[in-house]
Amino acid sequence: MPATATRQVAAPLPVLGHDVLVPLVTGGQVPYAALDYAASAPALRRVWDDVAAYAPYYGSVHRGAGHLSQLSTELFENSRATVGEFLGCRPGDEVVFTRSTTDSLNLLAAVLPPGTRVFAFESEHHAALLPWGRRADTAVTWLDAPRSPERAVEALERALAAREPYGPALVCVTGASNVTGELWPVRELAAAAHAHGARIVLDAAQLVPHQAVDVTALDVDWVAFSGHKLYAPFGAGVLAGRTDWLRRAEPYLAGGGATRRVARGAAGEPVVEWHETVARHEAGSPNVIGAYAIASACRALTAAGPGRLAAREQALLARLRAGLAEVPGVREISLFGADAPRVGVVSFVVDGWNSSHFAAALSAEYGIGVRDGLFCAHPLVRALLAENSGGAAGECGAPDEAPAASAIRVSFGVGTPEEHIDRFVRAAGELVTRGARWTYRTEGGRCVPEGPVA
Amino acid sequence: MPATATRQVAAPLPVLGHDVLVPLVTGGQVPYAALDYAASAPALRRVWDDVAAYAPYYGSVHRGAGHLSQLSTELFENSRATVGEFLGCRPGDEVVFTRSTTDSLNLLAAVLPPGTRVFAFESEHHAALLPWGRRADTAVTWLDAPRSPERAVEALERALAAREPYGPALVCVTGASNVTGELWPVRELAAAAHAHGARIVLDAAQLVPHQAVDVTALDVDWVAFSGHKLYAPFGAGVLAGRTDWLRRAEPYLAGGGATRRVARGAAGEPVVEWHETVARHEAGSPNVIGAYAIASACRALTAAGPGRLAAREQALLARLRAGLAEVPGVREISLFGADAPRVGVVSFVVDGWNSSHFAAALSAEYGIGVRDGLFCAHPLVRALLAENSGGAAGECGAPDEAPAASAIRVSFGVGTPEEHIDRFVRAAGELVTRGARWTYRTEGGRCVPEGPVA
Repeated sequence: MPATATRQVAAPLPVLGHDVLVPLVTGGQVPYAALDYAASAPALRRVWDDVAAYAPYYGSVHRGAGHLSQLSTELFENSRATVGEFLGCRPGDEVVFTRSTTDSLNLLAAVLPPGTRVFAFESEHHAALLPWGRRADTAVTWLDAPRSPERAVEALERALAAREPYGPALVCVTGASNVTGELWPVRELAAAAHAHGARIVLDAAQLVPHQAVDVTALDVDWVAFSGHKLYAPFGAGVLAGRTDWLRRAEPYLAGGGATRRVARGAAGEPVVEWHETVARHEAGSPNVIGAYAIASACRALTAAGPGRLAAREQALLARLRAGLAEVPGVREISLFGADAPRVGVVSFVVDGWNSSHFAAALSAEYGIGVRDGLFCAHPLVRALLAENSGGAAGECGAPDEAPAASAIRVSFGVGTPEEHIDRFVRAAGELVTRGARWTYRTEGGRCVPEGPVA
Repeated sequence: MPATATRQVAAPLPVLGHDVLVPLVTGGQVPYAALDYAASAPALRRVWDDVAAYAPYYGSVHRGAGHLSQLSTELFENSRATVGEFLGCRPGDEVVFTRSTTDSLNLLAAVLPPGTRVFAFESEHHAALLPWGRRADTAVTWLDAPRSPERAVEALERALAAREPYGPALVCVTGASNVTGELWPVRELAAAAHAHGARIVLDAAQLVPHQAVDVTALDVDWVAFSGHKLYAPFGAGVLAGRTDWLRRAEPYLAGGGATRRVARGAAGEPVVEWHETVARHEAGSPNVIGAYAIASACRALTAAGPGRLAAREQALLARLRAGLAEVPGVREISLFGADAPRVGVVSFVVDGWNSSHFAAALSAEYGIGVRDGLFCAHPLVRALLAENSGGAAGECGAPDEAPAASAIRVSFGVGTPEEHIDRFVRAAGELVTRGARWTYRTEGGRCVPEGPVA
C-alpha cells in the first residue's frame, strides 16, 4: 500500500504545538519543529486534556471537608501511586513530588546521613553535579569522565572500595546523557554500588521520556526526574525510592503540611512534631495539577507502549545520524563512541561554524528549534569540544579559528514527526554546502538575523 | 429596577468550577460552593484561558535558539516584570519565582546574613513560623500573640530595641491572618522595623488575593505569596523585594540555570561561578506556566479594579458575619476583636458541635466546601479555642464536653457569588436549630456520612 510505503515510522503521539506556524526571515511560515525536547518537551495532548478536564474540579487538598477538596486530595494521592507503578517501585518506596530533577537531587543531598561520601562522575549535568558537597558533614569523590560504560563501572568499583572510612556512600549517575544521549550502565553501576555498601540515585531526567525505567529491575535506590521533560510541563518533579534516609532527616522545607503537631514552647517558640511520611518533605500546598499531569503522562506512555515508542525513536535517531553523517564538516560529540546505545539526543559542531550562528540560522531560515551552548554540563561539553576543533568560537557571524566554544544539540521524543528530522537534516546540509541566506549578528548575547546575504 | 434591587453585590469574576455539580446525601445535586479559598482558590477563567492560549507555544526557555524558546523566555521574563509592577516594587527589587509562600520564606531564611535575629509572632501560619531558627548561625525572638494591632507594634518595638547584640534583624509578619482574616498593621510594623535597623518580610499569602499590596507604600523589604491562593494554581509562588541579601548568599538550589560558568578543578571537582542576578536562586528549568499564570492573575485583578473587588468582598463579609451572628451557639474566633478590619476569612466553633462533624454535614447535605482543623497555625488556633469552650472535641458524631479541638473556617474571594454565602448562612442555621439530617462517623481520620437520621 502506498500509505505504508511513504510512512516508514509510526505516527507520533499527539502533542500541543504540533501545528504552530512560525515566520521565516526568508518569507512565509512553516510549522515549528521543536527539536529541543532534552530541555523541555511539549505537553502531550492527552496530558493537556486531562488537566483541562480536572481544572474545574480543582480544590484545596488535605484538610478541606468539601467534595472537591476530597476529590483533589484523592487525585493527588492517586497520582503518587501511578508514578510509583510507572517506575516499578518496590513496596515501601515513596514518591515525593518536588519542583524538578534539580529540586529532587537537592532534596536528596539535604537528607544524606552525616558522614556520607558521594561518588559522581565529572561528566554529569549540573543538577547532578552541584548539589553534592555543599554540606560540611558530607564529602564528594569526583570520578573522571569515563570513555566506555565498562570503564565507568571499573572506576566506580575502585573508588568505592578505596573509600576511607568505609562509611555511608551514595552514587549519583545519569541514565542518559543530556549532551550525547548515551546510555549509562545503570544496572551494573547499581550492582557495584550495592556490592560496596553504597546507595545509588539515578538521574532519569533524560531517560524516563525515552525508555521505561524500572527501579526494581535496575535496583537503584532512588530515581529523580522532571515533569517538563516528560511531556507534563506544570512545575512538578519527582524523587522516588527508599524512605529511611528521608524519614530520618530534617524536613526539606519547614512549613504547614509537613507537621503533625506544633505546640507552643515555654518561650513562645514552636515545638514541632514533623510527619514521618512523605509529607515530611512536601511542606506547603502541593502542586496538584503538576503531580496529576505527571501521572497522566505516565499513563499515556504506558498505554502507548514504551517498547514501541523506543523502537520508533531509534528509527528516527538512525535516520537523523545517517543524514548528519552525510553533511560535510559535522562532528558529533560523544563520550562512549559512535556505536554506543543512546536516546534521541545528538550534539555536534560544524567545521568553520559558530554554533550560535548555526542554531540561529536553523530557526530563522527553517523554523527549527534546537539549542546551542554547553547544556548545563560545562565540564563535559568543554572536554568534548577540546577534542573537536572544527567548530568556531567568537561572535556569531564572525567565525574565527579558535576551538569551538559551544555545541549544537538536537533532541526529540514521542511527539516528533519524521518531517522534523528530515527538515533538520536537509537544513544542516544546505547551511553547510550553500551557506546561510541571511547574515546574523550578536545582540544582547543572542544571535539575531541582520539582513539577506548580498 | 428589579435587577438592581435583587442584586445587592456586583457579579463575581468568572472562575473555573462555578458550575460543577456535587451530589447531596439527601438526594439530588447542587452547584459546589467553594468556601475554602484561604487554602486554595479556584483558577480565574481569565488565567485558565491565558494558560490554554499559551500552552501550544510552550518551549524550552533560556538558551533555546528556536522561535518558541525565545517566545517562552520572553513570556517568562515579562511575567516577572508584571508581578513586580502588580506589587509596586521599587527600582532594583527582584521577583524570584518559587513554588509557594512556604518555599519563598524558606528561601529567605536560607539567605539571612549570619548572625541575623528574626522577630516573629507566635500566631503566624506555620509557613511563616517554622522556617526561622533552623540555622545555627541565626536566632529567633518569639513575640506573644498580641490582642490589638497597636500592641503588636509596641511589642515589636520593645523587642527590637532590646536586642543584644544590635545586629542584623528580620521581622516576619502576616498581612492578613489565615485563621481570622484580621489585618495586621503592616505599614506601622515596617516603620518600627526600619526605625530599629531591621528588615521586614510580609507574608501576603492571605492578603494579595483580597487587597492591592504595594511594597513601596507599605515600605516592606520583601513580600511572599502563592499562586494557588491568587487564582493561579499552577505550582508557582513569589518572593519579591531587596536583592542584596539574596545576591550575597549561597544559591538556594544548586544546579543548572543558577550558574554562569562551571570549570573543572584539579581533582575533577566543579568550580562554580554562580549568577548574581535572580537566576542565582532559580536553579533548574523554571515553571514557565506557573509564573505566567500568576502574571495573568495580576493583570486580571488589576483590570477588575482592586478597590472594587475589595468593596465587594467586604459587602459579602458583612452579610456572612451578620448571618452567622444570628445562629445560636456560633462563636467567631478572633485575635483583635469583632470590629477589627479583616478580609473574607472567618473561623468559628459551634456550641456542642464537633467541627469536623459540622464541616462534613455542610458538604454532604448542602454541597458547601469549608475547612475544619487548626489551619496550619496550631499555636494560634489552640490559644483561641481555649477561650471558646463551646465547640466539642472527640470523634465526629460523638460530641463531648471537652474544649473544642478544632475550628471551622469559611473563606471566599473574587469568584464567590452571593448565593454561596447565603447558602452557607442558611445551612449553618439549619444544622444548629434542626440538627443534621444524616449521622456521621469517623473513618480513616475523616468524618463521613453514615445514614439518615432515624
